[in-house]
Amino acid sequence: MSDAPADPGAPRAAPALPARLAPGEARERFRAGLRVPTAGYCAGYAQANLIALPRDLALDFLLFAQRNPKACPVLEVTEPGEVSAPVFAGDLRSDLPAYRVYEHGRLVAETADATAYWRPDLVAFLIGCSFTFEAPMLEAGIPLRHIETGRNVAMYTTDRPCRSAGRLAGPLVVSMRPIPAERVADAVRITARYPSVHGAPVHVGDPAGLGVADLDAPDFGDPVEVRPGEVPVFWACGVTPQAAVAASAPEFAIAHAPGHMAITDARDHDYRVP
Amino acid sequence: MSDAPADPGAPRAAPALPARLAPGEARERFRAGLRVPTAGYCAGYAQANLIALPRDLALDFLLFAQRNPKACPVLEVTEPGEVSAPVFAGDLRSDLPAYRVYEHGRLVAETADATAYWRPDLVAFLIGCSFTFEAPMLEAGIPLRHIETGRNVAMYTTDRPCRSAGRLAGPLVVSMRPIPAERVADAVRITARYPSVHGAPVHVGDPAGLGVADLDAPDFGDPVEVRPGEVPVFWACGVTPQAAVAASAPEFAIAHAPGHMAITDARDHDYRVP
Repeated sequence: MSDAPADPGAPRAAPALPARLAPGEARERFRAGLRVPTAGYCAGYAQANLIALPRDLALDFLLFAQRNPKACPVLEVTEPGEVSAPVFAGDLRSDLPAYRVYEHGRLVAETADATAYWRPDLVAFLIGCSFTFEAPMLEAGIPLRHIETGRNVAMYTTDRPCRSAGRLAGPLVVSMRPIPAERVADAVRITARYPSVHGAPVHVGDPAGLGVADLDAPDFGDPVEVRPGEVPVFWACGVTPQAAVAASAPEFAIAHAPGHMAITDARDHDYRVP
Repeated sequence: MSDAPADPGAPRAAPALPARLAPGEARERFRAGLRVPTAGYCAGYAQANLIALPRDLALDFLLFAQRNPKACPVLEVTEPGEVSAPVFAGDLRSDLPAYRVYEHGRLVAETADATAYWRPDLVAFLIGCSFTFEAPMLEAGIPLRHIETGRNVAMYTTDRPCRSAGRLAGPLVVSMRPIPAERVADAVRITARYPSVHGAPVHVGDPAGLGVADLDAPDFGDPVEVRPGEVPVFWACGVTPQAAVAASAPEFAIAHAPGHMAITDARDHDYRVP
């Protein structure tokens, strides 16, 4: 894993490893302009996807999430105008490493600070993120190549439609991790314990079965090599709301840039079931 | 699933579906000469592998099982000369559909009745069988092609060595079931609840990683087609002791014919963990 550049405003002299940062320290770095994928950051703390929509779309999105719980597990919803939350003691407009701004379904900006785009009528949803269960997988000795190589996870838009809700419809998006064939069962069992951060895989092997023609050409994130002896394993992904935004063209939306997550103050363990 | 041929000696007029037979009824049919793979028989009742070895090899085998618990989960061990057990209220010499007899590691007979070969110094081990968790997989709507097509499950000798014990050593044997890619996670979770009947898969996808060059040429059982959209999933198999017998050439052994199991009086549920 590559170390993060030192943040000149941080009180400590030497840069800490990303995994060892506290959530507030990481958010401070991102607010200061650090723009990196967050896989491997703040070990033990849950990460979250962000989707902020105008108030009049909030009900449609809550229904969409309710009907697609593997892809859209809602961890937190703000009141309109609120920019922090009990599980996120920072500023949702600036404390993620990067944002995407959509108008009528088109990506109009990718920015490290969304403050200038934020509107007072936005309702922000924090959606569980599969990065949350990467720490327990690593603890179990399951290698995760995108973390080892300091890259973003590979994500794909599938041909599997989500259940629609009101004005929102779109395809399921998945993240992919190459898992050694003899550890796939362990990866399933570990991630199944975290249902509110996408839980067990939705698909194992057979990319074509999801309509993914070329693993080397992800729709989001970086390509991650699948080596002999490994199997591509697919988890539902919190970029799914952005695919719904792209497909359904609501007037306005702000989201995190894929892989550049909200680091919450909640512990991974808080989302684990027995 | 094909129905079993009617047993002329059975008291009922119409043949019952194999899944609905009680263990004693199935054993009676096998004792009368019915020679079929037992997958799908006696739904809800656990099935078991048999390996019977001369008393002076029993300690070696118990150690072998202890060191290879995924492949050799011991459900029951008889005293020398005993031919039934609390979980098997039949005659171990005759009440399985078919047996294999080994001398110095060579297969010298395959027979529907092992009574003539049985020796008073044999200790019989009943080893958990993955057929036990097929009923819960079917209940969960996971299709199992070898049952649908009335065939034996496909089994392969891998290039993965077991841990040796005394005079016994040999490779791991696995059973394979093609599972739809979107149900692999469910198959893992369901079978993981049955650790004493092989539990979660040892390998998912990538047959070459187990040294299996050709899925269409199983070492035991029948070839089972893997269709597009499916992934070959491998579970440790209770034929592993027979591979150890073939590799280690102990003086004498009697085993079940692969896929032709001991149907026990224990319930699947008895081997389920919470």
